[in-house]
Amino acid sequence: MSIKIKAITDPPSREELSNRLEKVRSLMKEQDLDYYISFNPVNIYYLTNFAFYVHERPFILIIEKEGVPKMLIPKLEKGHFESRALCEIEFVIYYEFPSRKGENWYDYYQKQISSGAKVGIESELPIGIVNKTPGEIIVSDIIDEVRIIKTEYEIGRIYHACRVVNKGHKVLLKKCRPKTLEFALYKDVTDAMTSKIVQDIPNANFRAVDTTGAVWPPSISHDPHLIPHIFAPMEEGGPHVSIVSAQVDGYGVEIERSFFLGHIPEKTIKPFQVMLEARALAYNMLKPGTIMSDVDKAVRSFIIEKGYGDYIIHRTGHGLGITGHEAPFLAEGYDRPLEKNMVISVEPGIYIPGLGGFRHSDTVLITETGYQKLTKAPETIEELTIPL
Amino acid sequence: MSIKIKAITDPPSREELSNRLEKVRSLMKEQDLDYYISFNPVNIYYLTNFAFYVHERPFILIIEKEGVPKMLIPKLEKGHFESRALCEIEFVIYYEFPSRKGENWYDYYQKQISSGAKVGIESELPIGIVNKTPGEIIVSDIIDEVRIIKTEYEIGRIYHACRVVNKGHKVLLKKCRPKTLEFALYKDVTDAMTSKIVQDIPNANFRAVDTTGAVWPPSISHDPHLIPHIFAPMEEGGPHVSIVSAQVDGYGVEIERSFFLGHIPEKTIKPFQVMLEARALAYNMLKPGTIMSDVDKAVRSFIIEKGYGDYIIHRTGHGLGITGHEAPFLAEGYDRPLEKNMVISVEPGIYIPGLGGFRHSDTVLITETGYQKLTKAPETIEELTIPL
Repeated sequence: MSIKIKAITDPPSREELSNRLEKVRSLMKEQDLDYYISFNPVNIYYLTNFAFYVHERPFILIIEKEGVPKMLIPKLEKGHFESRALCEIEFVIYYEFPSRKGENWYDYYQKQISSGAKVGIESELPIGIVNKTPGEIIVSDIIDEVRIIKTEYEIGRIYHACRVVNKGHKVLLKKCRPKTLEFALYKDVTDAMTSKIVQDIPNANFRAVDTTGAVWPPSISHDPHLIPHIFAPMEEGGPHVSIVSAQVDGYGVEIERSFFLGHIPEKTIKPFQVMLEARALAYNMLKPGTIMSDVDKAVRSFIIEKGYGDYIIHRTGHGLGITGHEAPFLAEGYDRPLEKNMVISVEPGIYIPGLGGFRHSDTVLITETGYQKLTKAPETIEELTIPL
Repeated sequence: MSIKIKAITDPPSREELSNRLEKVRSLMKEQDLDYYISFNPVNIYYLTNFAFYVHERPFILIIEKEGVPKMLIPKLEKGHFESRALCEIEFVIYYEFPSRKGENWYDYYQKQISSGAKVGIESELPIGIVNKTPGEIIVSDIIDEVRIIKTEYEIGRIYHACRVVNKGHKVLLKKCRPKTLEFALYKDVTDAMTSKIVQDIPNANFRAVDTTGAVWPPSISHDPHLIPHIFAPMEEGGPHVSIVSAQVDGYGVEIERSFFLGHIPEKTIKPFQVMLEARALAYNMLKPGTIMSDVDKAVRSFIIEKGYGDYIIHRTGHGLGITGHEAPFLAEGYDRPLEKNMVISVEPGIYIPGLGGFRHSDTVLITETGYQKLTKAPETIEELTIPL
């Protein structure tokens, strides 16, 4: 039963951001923390709408139990922050990295936190910053935890981002022919997605935009994390494996397909079918309450039973949100139930050296009663065999 | 006196990489370390030629005092590593993130390091990994230290990368006219650079390629770290400020200019002149032995004396190498002498709200007797005023 989702392209409201902050503070309260320190640019973007890349000048968000959060930031980034952030903030400005003695970032940073305080930090916080943090340190990924369940606003943004990758994938299947070069495909697909992004979101923040469109031709499609040669030619037959992903003004999604050009080699029919069945089996389990590791176990058992156990090289899926790769995970060892408004990829894969890779991936929303695919592309072997 | 530099586009030899490793080991020995742990993808690339982005599945390089270094890596990245790395390596493979109890990355990781060992780590190492690291932990940025002085090979690669940004900047000045949109400039400049990169390095690794070409029109050029609106139009007059930077198959460089379209507003002539003089003053000090903070102090004093002290918002320069932004720094508080074969930017700036930004940046090599600019573009106000 499909629910109606409205694609959103507007920036987040102040209320959306302050609700996110309240969720973080509610976990701080549960864990009895006086402060929470965020350095991960993704987490800072989530709470402020300010996107940046990490370099030697630290940007640190300091959240106290109550009051306006503080942003420790180098002088020359203040205007940038103000132009993009959509939340209340108090600035703590340092001049440069490095600065004169007594005026470095950590001199200002340490003044913001009382030495007896209980201070929550991300497990990603670099030791160089941990060592400058006063108080009793508690590693707890609170913001990452809040990000796992998407708000209605985020779902609308993610749904829009899925339309962007749908378009990219359509272009990819249209342009991909034997002898087409990787580089040409990459350009056509990323140009198509970038054009849609700037048309739909004229004020998109290019610090939070990224697009990828690539195909692993059959000779390398069994090795899904190789970076293909930029002048690699596409080949007749298959399976080729596509990856089309995008971070669309802050929201990251993906769509991937195994497909064929012209003809289907006889030996690929069975693994393709097994992949489709493993996928159907995973989808059938998707609903609130299902333990995520159980999905991966069921998929593994099925693929092993069909004789392809040696060709499993990754878990069944991962979360998506601001990034295209994050918690939660459809993986053994991740014994947490699915919940409404999680967004995950579903992508069981079989990778056979000498034959190729068999994997479809979609970006999927967990709903009250089950799931809804947010990305859309052909799925069957017939639909995915492009006539030459 | 200019020295002859040969542009290099070949991948590093095994010898180049093993010499880098030897320098790391020599610092490990000085600091009496049994192991060194690297997680920073830039440092791992420096030693292995394997480029990747950090996500939830850790990649960790484990360097013991002697013997072949070990790479802890998820199963599906092994083929990727083998296809790009150009050094000897021993693999430590874990299946997935997360994995079944007892089979997680840290279970394998901890077995590699004896509990009584002295273990050097990067100050960027995330606390979540520090807390899983056995032995006595010593924070010491050894690989970052080695990277500060470039090898002949790196200088050749950097020189080639400079040719790429020179080309990008030429295209930028050619295409930039009043009403040209930011987005169009960005596309023209990055396309020109990407084309040159793939022509010169057909096997370039796109995980280590990135290009940027942008202009801050006069209405925002006083705020150099804003991200311009993608449909911002260029304006008549100036100063506009360009940023053209690229990571060219692993090597990051930049070139930046203040320039004018059509006419030079009267009030901009003096600050432009002061910027040029501050820059000349910095260049005159560039030679081995000069304390880097002294360059920044001299530049600051000069700009203050000329009446623009309130409009300094950043240091005089930063290092470049694999990244476009790294140690060493021409900054107060950085009291280290310049050495032969450092590569730095020289970019004193004056930023006046309502008037604009005044900054040229070049990528510069420190030589035995002084310096050599590796980037090339017009410098004077006359050359940088484009007739309409």
